[in-house]
Amino acid sequence: MKIGLDMTNLKSFVHDKDVADLLPQLKKSHDDLHSGKGKGSEFTGWLNLPSKTESSFLSELKNLGEEVRKNSDCLISIGIGGSYIGIRAALDFLSREQKLPVFYAGHNLSSGYLQDLFTQLKDKRVTVLVISKSGTTTEPAVAFRLVKQFMAGKYSDTELKQRIICITDEKKGALRAIANKEGYRTYPIADDVGGRFSVLAPVGLVPLALAGIDIASLIKGSQDAEKELSVADYGENIAWQYAANRYLLYRQKKNIEITSFFYEEMHFIGEWIKQLSGESEGKEGQGIFPASVNFTADLHSMGQLIQEGERNLFETFLIVKNTGHELLIPEDKDNQDNFNCVAKKNLDWVNEQAYRATAMAHYEGGVPNMTITLPQFDAYTLGQLFYFYEKTIALTGYLMGVNPFNQPGVEAYKTKMFALLGRK
Amino acid sequence: MKIGLDMTNLKSFVHDKDVADLLPQLKKSHDDLHSGKGKGSEFTGWLNLPSKTESSFLSELKNLGEEVRKNSDCLISIGIGGSYIGIRAALDFLSREQKLPVFYAGHNLSSGYLQDLFTQLKDKRVTVLVISKSGTTTEPAVAFRLVKQFMAGKYSDTELKQRIICITDEKKGALRAIANKEGYRTYPIADDVGGRFSVLAPVGLVPLALAGIDIASLIKGSQDAEKELSVADYGENIAWQYAANRYLLYRQKKNIEITSFFYEEMHFIGEWIKQLSGESEGKEGQGIFPASVNFTADLHSMGQLIQEGERNLFETFLIVKNTGHELLIPEDKDNQDNFNCVAKKNLDWVNEQAYRATAMAHYEGGVPNMTITLPQFDAYTLGQLFYFYEKTIALTGYLMGVNPFNQPGVEAYKTKMFALLGRK
Repeated sequence: MKIGLDMTNLKSFVHDKDVADLLPQLKKSHDDLHSGKGKGSEFTGWLNLPSKTESSFLSELKNLGEEVRKNSDCLISIGIGGSYIGIRAALDFLSREQKLPVFYAGHNLSSGYLQDLFTQLKDKRVTVLVISKSGTTTEPAVAFRLVKQFMAGKYSDTELKQRIICITDEKKGALRAIANKEGYRTYPIADDVGGRFSVLAPVGLVPLALAGIDIASLIKGSQDAEKELSVADYGENIAWQYAANRYLLYRQKKNIEITSFFYEEMHFIGEWIKQLSGESEGKEGQGIFPASVNFTADLHSMGQLIQEGERNLFETFLIVKNTGHELLIPEDKDNQDNFNCVAKKNLDWVNEQAYRATAMAHYEGGVPNMTITLPQFDAYTLGQLFYFYEKTIALTGYLMGVNPFNQPGVEAYKTKMFALLGRK
Repeated sequence: MKIGLDMTNLKSFVHDKDVADLLPQLKKSHDDLHSGKGKGSEFTGWLNLPSKTESSFLSELKNLGEEVRKNSDCLISIGIGGSYIGIRAALDFLSREQKLPVFYAGHNLSSGYLQDLFTQLKDKRVTVLVISKSGTTTEPAVAFRLVKQFMAGKYSDTELKQRIICITDEKKGALRAIANKEGYRTYPIADDVGGRFSVLAPVGLVPLALAGIDIASLIKGSQDAEKELSVADYGENIAWQYAANRYLLYRQKKNIEITSFFYEEMHFIGEWIKQLSGESEGKEGQGIFPASVNFTADLHSMGQLIQEGERNLFETFLIVKNTGHELLIPEDKDNQDNFNCVAKKNLDWVNEQAYRATAMAHYEGGVPNMTITLPQFDAYTLGQLFYFYEKTIALTGYLMGVNPFNQPGVEAYKTKMFALLGRK
């Protein structure tokens, strides 16, 4: 693994014996997951997805991306939840290698938002991606109606067929029926990979390829992670380590996990983690509450509470070792602010010291914390990170005794909303 | 008050008797706040700030805004915490009346972020605002060095004096010294208004005026709120109501408050609330953990956990009644997605039904919730909202027995960081 896990700041909270006592249960969770004997095993297709991804498919998507970028100034990606957050997380994290701007739709129900989007893209050449397994999720379905209307004002029926691509169920559902009837190109959403585990499936790969991301590296990273994280050995497997310690902290009533990072391009990585962990674990009256903070900004807002509030928190830092940027702080002859100590230093170096200081201060303040280290902002690293989190959260879910792969609670508001909308 | 508070969905969680029993304590909190006998009373200048704001000062700022917009394409606003979040919250909420783009700096320590900003603004006419009471907070101090260097590459010393405006301590501190020496224009940060309570002070008013926001309406809204929320009567005072019920829920171990809204332009309102409540209450081992969600997107990520996870949550919806936008959903003759039921309806109407369904579903799922209703996206409403929250959080802090106006915990990481930076 190119990514690492530092557990130094757990010392006074989790003892070796706690971990040792948990190992049999952890081993069983691992075995249940790999043997398909655990809860929700019909949705564990993500487990071997990297190794099953054909390089010919990656080449096909690469070519599709080159074709689309020739005739398009931007992409509208329609989707919500697992068909939105992972894609946005990846594109923000890899923003410097992105070749085509991507705009999002179908992730809200805001008239003003879509009006602004259509105004902005009025004179642009647009390709549309619609990502929905059923085609009947309210937000993307309604957005697709509006986006189709916008596109029909720009293009002929023939050209529309080229400019609308659907990622949907292979056989059934409303979007499949629409795509078949209109002759849109399609890519499949498999039955055995749930939305929040689908960023390494076509759901994520198609939009990323169109945006010009190196999806072969992304998949290579996840393949290496798949292999290394299949080893049933606590000392060797950082997913085991992270899952075990998250669970042990949760059992100590540390029921809020704050994921903390120091670069704004990771904001949606935080959102992706919140969906993955919250939706997988938050059921049957339990689950770690997932929060995220953008430091150092949020040290000046959430910092006080993290340092001295209720001690029901633990924290996971996501640190990028080498950002690849250099901006040197100027010397100032008056030095009124007394910061000549960092003159000629890279600003990112100061950021790194802020992380080190924060991890220590929070630990001493009673907040156990771990640090996931990422070598750099690249697709290979991101592939490893995605797979590592998926594996970890599946294991923690099994340790908690829940089915990490369902989401029965999301129907509650939908049922009520459909009644209010008069939808049968 | 033009803003309202709906407490229907507290019914099975908070009983009339609980409220009645709390009233003496609430009355004492109110009296302590108004008489200056409570904890931290040296920082309660925000309480009468709206009524003390002179209309001549607002006119002066309006004129300054007109002057700046004549010679500037954009503003760089340097600040962090209370010198950043409230300004951004206001500008996002009022984005449709904003006349000058505002870019932020000094709220992070990222080389890449600032490099991108300087590249983007290379050929723009820029005015810079520096907002820092001491001038020695790391992020804005270091960013100011870099922004000054950027500006010095564009402008003569004489023009720089016109293009840099400082909001800082009236007498002491590094930024005051720099401003005095260089001859920059300044606006004051008073001693009796802490950062997170300062959005209605010059800290917020100057940048908002420069951006073209109607600060007279903002202040008028806050003045009306100041007056109405000074009434010591539970039935008449929504700050009393919100404070009392937040506290009663917290006493029931509902120790996470989720602030939920349905428009992305409110994201930073959520961040402002998180700072205000988290930093005011999160101390001495207590405090409600503040989270926020952007619905409906986050119904598809955090929704499962809110519906069925640990029952340690309560929720506050922030709803805008009349968004002023209309985008009608098209009819579809095939109706494959079965959404012709909402054909010819405004998309924002569907959003409103999503809110109604969600509030009911979460209540039935065991999440007590309240709704703050805002008439529309305008400055008057926002002025009321800001003051309402400040008053509420001050009262809840007193109910909890803490000093809501200090933040002793933020020194912990700073001390360690200065050591790592070699700063004396």
